[in-house]
Amino acid sequence: MSTVYTNPPRIAAEIVAGYAGLGVATVHEAQGRTGLMQPYMRPVYAGARAAGTAVTVSLAPADNWMLHVAVEQCQPGDIVVAAPTSLSDAGYFGELLATSLAARGVRGLVLEGGCRDIAELTRMGFPVWSRAISAQGTVKGTIGSVNVPLVCAGQLVHPGDLILADDDGIVVVARERAAPVLAASRAREAKEAANRARFERGALGLDLYGMREALAQKGLTYKPYGG
Amino acid sequence: MSTVYTNPPRIAAEIVAGYAGLGVATVHEAQGRTGLMQPYMRPVYAGARAAGTAVTVSLAPADNWMLHVAVEQCQPGDIVVAAPTSLSDAGYFGELLATSLAARGVRGLVLEGGCRDIAELTRMGFPVWSRAISAQGTVKGTIGSVNVPLVCAGQLVHPGDLILADDDGIVVVARERAAPVLAASRAREAKEAANRARFERGALGLDLYGMREALAQKGLTYKPYGG
Amino acid sequence: MSTVYTNPPRIAAEIVAGYAGLGVATVHEAQGRTGLMQPYMRPVYAGARAAGTAVTVSLAPADNWMLHVAVEQCQPGDIVVAAPTSLSDAGYFGELLATSLAARGVRGLVLEGGCRDIAELTRMGFPVWSRAISAQGTVKGTIGSVNVPLVCAGQLVHPGDLILADDDGIVVVARERAAPVLAASRAREAKEAANRARFERGALGLDLYGMREALAQKGLTYKPYGG
Amino acid sequence: MSTVYTNPPRIAAEIVAGYAGLGVATVHEAQGRTGLMQPYMRPVYAGARAAGTAVTVSLAPADNWMLHVAVEQCQPGDIVVAAPTSLSDAGYFGELLATSLAARGVRGLVLEGGCRDIAELTRMGFPVWSRAISAQGTVKGTIGSVNVPLVCAGQLVHPGDLILADDDGIVVVARERAAPVLAASRAREAKEAANRARFERGALGLDLYGMREALAQKGLTYKPYGG
Amino acid sequence: MSTVYTNPPRIAAEIVAGYAGLGVATVHEAQGRTGLMQPYMRPVYAGARAAGTAVTVSLAPADNWMLHVAVEQCQPGDIVVAAPTSLSDAGYFGELLATSLAARGVRGLVLEGGCRDIAELTRMGFPVWSRAISAQGTVKGTIGSVNVPLVCAGQLVHPGDLILADDDGIVVVARERAAPVLAASRAREAKEAANRARFERGALGLDLYGMREALAQKGLTYKPYGG
Amino acid sequence: MSTVYTNPPRIAAEIVAGYAGLGVATVHEAQGRTGLMQPYMRPVYAGARAAGTAVTVSLAPADNWMLHVAVEQCQPGDIVVAAPTSLSDAGYFGELLATSLAARGVRGLVLEGGCRDIAELTRMGFPVWSRAISAQGTVKGTIGSVNVPLVCAGQLVHPGDLILADDDGIVVVARERAAPVLAASRAREAKEAANRARFERGALGLDLYGMREALAQKGLTYKPYGG
Repeated sequence: MSTVYTNPPRIAAEIVAGYAGLGVATVHEAQGRTGLMQPYMRPVYAGARAAGTAVTVSLAPADNWMLHVAVEQCQPGDIVVAAPTSLSDAGYFGELLATSLAARGVRGLVLEGGCRDIAELTRMGFPVWSRAISAQGTVKGTIGSVNVPLVCAGQLVHPGDLILADDDGIVVVARERAAPVLAASRAREAKEAANRARFERGALGLDLYGMREALAQKGLTYKPYGG
Repeated sequence: MSTVYTNPPRIAAEIVAGYAGLGVATVHEAQGRTGLMQPYMRPVYAGARAAGTAVTVSLAPADNWMLHVAVEQCQPGDIVVAAPTSLSDAGYFGELLATSLAARGVRGLVLEGGCRDIAELTRMGFPVWSRAISAQGTVKGTIGSVNVPLVCAGQLVHPGDLILADDDGIVVVARERAAPVLAASRAREAKEAANRARFERGALGLDLYGMREALAQKGLTYKPYGG
Repeated sequence: MSTVYTNPPRIAAEIVAGYAGLGVATVHEAQGRTGLMQPYMRPVYAGARAAGTAVTVSLAPADNWMLHVAVEQCQPGDIVVAAPTSLSDAGYFGELLATSLAARGVRGLVLEGGCRDIAELTRMGFPVWSRAISAQGTVKGTIGSVNVPLVCAGQLVHPGDLILADDDGIVVVARERAAPVLAASRAREAKEAANRARFERGALGLDLYGMREALAQKGLTYKPYGG
Repeated sequence: MSTVYTNPPRIAAEIVAGYAGLGVATVHEAQGRTGLMQPYMRPVYAGARAAGTAVTVSLAPADNWMLHVAVEQCQPGDIVVAAPTSLSDAGYFGELLATSLAARGVRGLVLEGGCRDIAELTRMGFPVWSRAISAQGTVKGTIGSVNVPLVCAGQLVHPGDLILADDDGIVVVARERAAPVLAASRAREAKEAANRARFERGALGLDLYGMREALAQKGLTYKPYGG
Repeated sequence: MSTVYTNPPRIAAEIVAGYAGLGVATVHEAQGRTGLMQPYMRPVYAGARAAGTAVTVSLAPADNWMLHVAVEQCQPGDIVVAAPTSLSDAGYFGELLATSLAARGVRGLVLEGGCRDIAELTRMGFPVWSRAISAQGTVKGTIGSVNVPLVCAGQLVHPGDLILADDDGIVVVARERAAPVLAASRAREAKEAANRARFERGALGLDLYGMREALAQKGLTYKPYGG
Repeated sequence: MSTVYTNPPRIAAEIVAGYAGLGVATVHEAQGRTGLMQPYMRPVYAGARAAGTAVTVSLAPADNWMLHVAVEQCQPGDIVVAAPTSLSDAGYFGELLATSLAARGVRGLVLEGGCRDIAELTRMGFPVWSRAISAQGTVKGTIGSVNVPLVCAGQLVHPGDLILADDDGIVVVARERAAPVLAASRAREAKEAANRARFERGALGLDLYGMREALAQKGLTYKPYGG
């Protein structure tokens, strides 16, 4: 049952490029508040950002063998998404694997496990989002699969899905929805830019979003403090 | 029962200004080791600092409606303190609300929940202390209250209380004690500055604080290692 | 039973110096994946690094008295390793104690508890690895011991052991093994440097480590995606 | 600032008795979803239940001295509510203190800390709700206060408040609201009893609560699976 | 996008019945160590057990409206599997909903959230596996979906999948694999029964599983203690 | 470096028997508040109790091979203490291994990892204390050691040490101290029995322990409530 699926579908580079300037929170909203991984996934350095296409890796717990297998399946623009079949926060990934992935043009790693060599990854600028930081080594004893659908940090990921990750977290966009979600995200961002300008000039969300009537209907009352 | 109290009391600006150069640990000590929020509250970027007067917001879980309501009640020098009635680490707050608060002169947010748009908040220099970082959106369906006493991260906060927050955490000083606690904090800091100079020159706390006798009375003994 | 052992053994300065350029993950691997403290121990600022000889401090919970006692036992090149007899994440350590330790040439602190004055420690460049950040003060009421063997974050530490800490965590090397583990670590690093160069040029771990046959024997198969 | 306040107000015994048959969830709902302590507070044995009037105890961390002081202030029908000024999960309470409290007619303990002697407490039927179970002893070195307002597990508790605790958690009812909240809780329970009977006969909440129209207005649609 | 899918496929009753006597650990092993939900899911009372067919419910956080909607879609033999779109440990489920589900022959609930009315559920014998126990109420303001594929506690669940839950946790078996996994589980159990009898008579796993040679090859050595 | 040490020292059966009636909290106090494992170790069923001599097992993470090896080294009266070299909460232990250990007269297991087959272990009355409950299987791929000193849940354990475990947790008594700690524990228990009788008759700890003067010296004051 352990299989490496080769040549998974990918998203057109110009669509992926469109996501590069968007935030995870914006895309998550734009696709109906779906696709967000659990917040325990954190970047290993502040300011990390990546957008790319998922190559998925199903690992045995505390065993990083399949990460080595997965490297060969990667192309420029990919993001590796890896999860063990049961949780273990050992350090599955470090500088050497990062060097290897970077050499193939991979843009980052999303790992439901532990990561090590944080100082080196920071220097290299190879972004990793992980559940933990740990120097604990793993073994190479049990095989798994590459490019199978898997659940990572609470989200189902298929090979070829769009992955966007930044300081806020990680959002998954299904491959077939990558184009419409990009359009919806840009529309949302344009609207937010307009609102941001209004907020900077002192407008209130109460007025901008027309909330006052709904609040009054819910029964919200105003009283002077201490009155 | 959902009420917005307007015009809560505030602390004189010169007193708040006095806190600007003090550390949370110093003030916490100076007021008898009280008022410290739980340590799970962390700044969303390193080096965050804020001192101001509390505007409090009681939220429904995973619902940020009342943050929009609270903006209108804020003045320059305020810090918003918000907590849901039951814990949920969704992302209640992001860049747009921060822009709106910053436009009114608000100095920061203390939020017992999740925060998003970390990269933008870092760029803006708008400091937030939160329980979690999460891009997960919230709804606007249930009302709450503004400027009521509430418990946030284990501390009771009244509107108008002094809030001081830095990399170490968040301390609450009751409004009526803001002046004497400031004096006590400065006295403590002066003493610490004197001690710091002595420590830099190699003095020992054992001597500086006169601990040797008390330790001996407790029964502490010295022996050569391996002897 | 509370004793301060004076003049514990130390490791030769040139051996400690050898560790200064090595990573925790490398040393942990080089000594057979032993000696790593639990990953809940984190540096209080990014980029922290230290190598030194352990002075150990056994504390009462929420009581930092023995840290003051320990300062006097420290020499240049030491790292203080402190753990309470039961866990409490109060803030045992801050700027003044750091100033005192730095004045004696101590290189850092490993503390299974809470740390405060993070902004000042960052400015000073005095590295601390701790379980928590907390401004909560501690008392000085119960004595403990200095330079006894103790368990810190899951590892047994003897006075005089080698402590190496960086962004990845903390590894303990028994004093008597400090020289051979240094040699093994350097050998490992040399090998990794060679491999790194190969990875940068696009070599695959599958080939470099000769994994293909073992994977096939385990039953790993390759199939075209969607085929 | 450490004070024992004697003879706090109490709630009439017949009102407290009225709460004995009610559940925490019911009372929490009946008072507008307020007053519930954080869910990390758990009974030390299944089936624990208690209703009574709060005697509050503010403890130093890992120090149970004030629990001994509090015993003298207790009367039959009281429940002791104790919280340290900073969190520590040491074992503040065990069989001997339970024997002493039981001898005075105290009905239980709510403790934001650790509890020990679980087997004995189970045998005695003395219910405790705590954050942790731990055999770790505490010291008697720092004083605190009895019968001051305090925050326990996220809720403000005044001496004399009504405390109701069961397998679901702990709810606090302000003393002055104890009578009306009892009436509201009973009304709620009567309504729930009527609904329970309808549910047992197969009625649907969709019909009983008239939800179908609101769901349709929100846009809920029904489709055959796989259709 | 909120839809209730009616009449999802179900598994033949005789196959579900076959799972009733099996343990979660056995079935998990028998299907290749897949399908196990995260271990933070715990039964609300000891000794809980259930086997049935999944009806899935996607909830808004801290909102239990869709549980009411789901009841109507249930048949005897079903198990409801419910997860919010972002985590919140409020109390989504209690006695009244349990009464309603029990009246329709539902065998249990798997809920990635909080559960209340534990004493009543225990008395009723209606088993629930949840992330938390909490009396905190939820709202009915946002719709979701019924009988869509969802991720619950780290596992993808489709409507009609086999759910088996006991004191050890919860395992999901895809509907189309329910029959062969049942056969494999029974075979495994028969083998374990035979081994159990041998272990009771004192046989060693070392001999029964023929491990001695492999251990020696790995380099395991035996030495007298202290020798 | 993987070695099985055979025939470790054991404690005389009559001394171990003496611990059978004592509580973990009592023994922990009697040996100076040392030796207590971390409170995250919990019995898998309520009322579990065991006293015995440690056989230690150092495991690879998520690998239970060495537990099979350890069985052969056990004698009646032993308790197995097992910890992985890095944390993983997979299910290392279940019914079959319990049957095998029980057949050799082993009294229980202390496991810094996950345990499965809880229902069966409860029925058998084979007590296990573990960090987690998980049905997740482990592999048999990496060897470790038996009867080496190891750190389990924060305590150093040598083969032959006395292990006492109950609902409160687990305490380790060094083999050479087993006799004097037993005597001290019995003395403490006798004293507690006398005090318990006094508490039952209504005596106060304030008087029994003569605390009133020390409290007054610390500055504790008494005031009427609201006065």
